[in-house]
Amino acid sequence: MTETIKGGQTRDRILKRTREILITRGFYNTSINDIVVGTGVKKGNLYYHFSSKEDLGIAVLQDAKEDFFKFLESAFSGDNPLDCLRNFLDAILNEQRKKNFVGGCLFGNTALEMSDNNPEFARIINEIFRRWAGIIEGYLNEAIARGDLLTAFNPYQLSELIIAAIEGGIMMARVSKEGRELAGCIESLKKLLASNPRNVAPLQTAQ
Amino acid sequence: MTETIKGGQTRDRILKRTREILITRGFYNTSINDIVVGTGVKKGNLYYHFSSKEDLGIAVLQDAKEDFFKFLESAFSGDNPLDCLRNFLDAILNEQRKKNFVGGCLFGNTALEMSDNNPEFARIINEIFRRWAGIIEGYLNEAIARGDLLTAFNPYQLSELIIAAIEGGIMMARVSKEGRELAGCIESLKKLLASNPRNVAPLQTAQ
Repeated sequence: MTETIKGGQTRDRILKRTREILITRGFYNTSINDIVVGTGVKKGNLYYHFSSKEDLGIAVLQDAKEDFFKFLESAFSGDNPLDCLRNFLDAILNEQRKKNFVGGCLFGNTALEMSDNNPEFARIINEIFRRWAGIIEGYLNEAIARGDLLTAFNPYQLSELIIAAIEGGIMMARVSKEGRELAGCIESLKKLLASNPRNVAPLQTAQ
Repeated sequence: MTETIKGGQTRDRILKRTREILITRGFYNTSINDIVVGTGVKKGNLYYHFSSKEDLGIAVLQDAKEDFFKFLESAFSGDNPLDCLRNFLDAILNEQRKKNFVGGCLFGNTALEMSDNNPEFARIINEIFRRWAGIIEGYLNEAIARGDLLTAFNPYQLSELIIAAIEGGIMMARVSKEGRELAGCIESLKKLLASNPRNVAPLQTAQ
């Protein structure tokens, strides 16, 4: 029992620390030796828990996925569905700001690095994007049903646009290290969640 | 003279072929040996033109950047600025479709793989995103000035939202290999370019 707990703790420590390494360095730029040094776990012990770097990478993704959906649960807080959506958008921006826009999004990074090379990585990330879009769509549908949101967008398509703009905004902020781009995207997405975008800010008037 | 032309041709062949390799495999997952095999150019000749893999990677980015802005010039075609913007969005989707959503966007891939590891890569990609945003902003401002577009969005922020949604949409399509996500994002972005998004599609009516 104690052995199992200790083994579980070691496994978890490897997963969490490797996640930090992979998020900034990427998968191919990280060697098993980097993981040995970064986790402080001996190579033999590492291979006891994970049969290969791919196996470890997949486990890191699965572990990060669980944490991400827990984060989303708390991020979608508010008195009504539109508030929940706005708070979720702010929570994403705050998370990236806390990290000074270093590392970006593990899923986005891995999507671009691995999806043409390893179908299992692609499969997991695809699943994450779809489940995430489904959650956003649920709030959008609720807002529409309550009459809080009038939109010309198809709710599922809008939920994918939101995810795409978040992932792209994180990418742009990571490149510039300024965060202005992601903040701008979040602001624009909030405008999209206003019933009529024309009413929520000074109009660009025609001349 | 002939020597120089031949040298220039070899350099160009290395750049174009390496671009294809990097776009699907990524930078760290590509070895000098992969490039030797892929280009058919001997290692000595490769090092005659480029001092290191980083040096070659930077040159590939610069070369792809020039081609990209040439592509944009032809993509923004149309009788008025809104038409130009819509045709540009379609051109992006068509380019990705032609490639079956394999490879994605070299700049986006490199942004996520390299920007925390190599400031020179980040600097070039940041420059590309800004110049691209500036071009989109120009068309948006023109459309607003002509009275073709009434929008609550700040034109520069909207141009960055468009780029973010394109990059994120390419990412999602690359993961799913379906293209539906990018097509959806492009459709949503076109709705944003209608003066009033509420008017361009059947309303999601409140109950």
